[in-house]
Amino acid sequence: MSSGIDQGGTEPKRRGRRRSGADTKAALLTAAREIFTEQGYDAATVRAIAGRAGVDPAMVNHWFGGKAGLFTAAVRIPINPDDDVPQLLAGGPEQLAERMLRRFLSAWDNAGGGQFVALMRSIATHDNAVTMLREFIQSVVFMRLIKTLGTDQPELRAALCGAQIVGLGMARYVVRLEPLASADHDVVVATIGPNLQRYLTGDISGATGP
Amino acid sequence: MSSGIDQGGTEPKRRGRRRSGADTKAALLTAAREIFTEQGYDAATVRAIAGRAGVDPAMVNHWFGGKAGLFTAAVRIPINPDDDVPQLLAGGPEQLAERMLRRFLSAWDNAGGGQFVALMRSIATHDNAVTMLREFIQSVVFMRLIKTLGTDQPELRAALCGAQIVGLGMARYVVRLEPLASADHDVVVATIGPNLQRYLTGDISGATGP
Repeated sequence: MSSGIDQGGTEPKRRGRRRSGADTKAALLTAAREIFTEQGYDAATVRAIAGRAGVDPAMVNHWFGGKAGLFTAAVRIPINPDDDVPQLLAGGPEQLAERMLRRFLSAWDNAGGGQFVALMRSIATHDNAVTMLREFIQSVVFMRLIKTLGTDQPELRAALCGAQIVGLGMARYVVRLEPLASADHDVVVATIGPNLQRYLTGDISGATGP
Repeated sequence: MSSGIDQGGTEPKRRGRRRSGADTKAALLTAAREIFTEQGYDAATVRAIAGRAGVDPAMVNHWFGGKAGLFTAAVRIPINPDDDVPQLLAGGPEQLAERMLRRFLSAWDNAGGGQFVALMRSIATHDNAVTMLREFIQSVVFMRLIKTLGTDQPELRAALCGAQIVGLGMARYVVRLEPLASADHDVVVATIGPNLQRYLTGDISGATGP
């Protein structure tokens, strides 16, 4: 993650007043939520977002490492597609579900689940959060992962993966269903991994027996 | 469901004023949310809920068919455990996941998903909705179903089923992930059914191969 914590230093002087780093980041996140929602991920440009925020486009790289990092920060999802998708794919498709689960669990648990809870709270109260989560699942991360696998019905698989991952987050951090809420990552991988792996690479035609 | 639509008829005259049926139902639902949250499902009594609502305990049977129906109405979940759990179990354990999925999908789709969206909205904004959903999953429906199966780790299985069912609802009605959001029930059963069935009756020890 290239977004720093320090609040000083390199803020640009636009519109005749100094902005703190925190102000700049907040303005970029607000503008990003608006423009990603209006235009979708692919059509939105760093220039347009920076323009609406009233800051220099270089600030997007400075604070978020680029458009993908800004998107994932705006949607509060702990996966940066540019960095993480190649890493997740690097080990081959067979253990992809396990790597995905460990990646989400590590990121979410680091913040005590607060990031996921904040995402769900924003989904319940803001339609644009819904649009952004949909965009994330359908385009930015899951579809990018799944299309590289070459399996059938990639859109349906991405939606099924989204349902399982969001359901895990709900059960673990929002509803706090025990013993899943306190389970070790190994237990989550052993129980949910094979199901997520089926959504990624298994037969989802219904042709399998009971 | 024994809760009627008609607004007239049998309201009791307590506290010196007439209450409409709608008032009585709303007062019971509010009192139920409070008392189920404070005391849990098992300890809460119809008498205590009716007392807090200021209505005759017979009104619980009249409007909700009993304590279980009042609970599921209060938590906005379309399963009445007293009626539905025996029905779901009647066909044997092998197709239980399919019957569960069809039951939830039919109930949710009948209301255009509005019931599920309302539940999620209340979860994001009210802690007692979280407590009630946890109670529902851990005690009222899923645990009751799973304990009859005699499988190992019933609490973990109930939590895993909860994660998958809530995730399906989120994907279908809140985030509206296509093509899952518009999929026929047969498609949902073919794709998610085998995974839910593994949570109910399959090997979740992690001992299975890839």
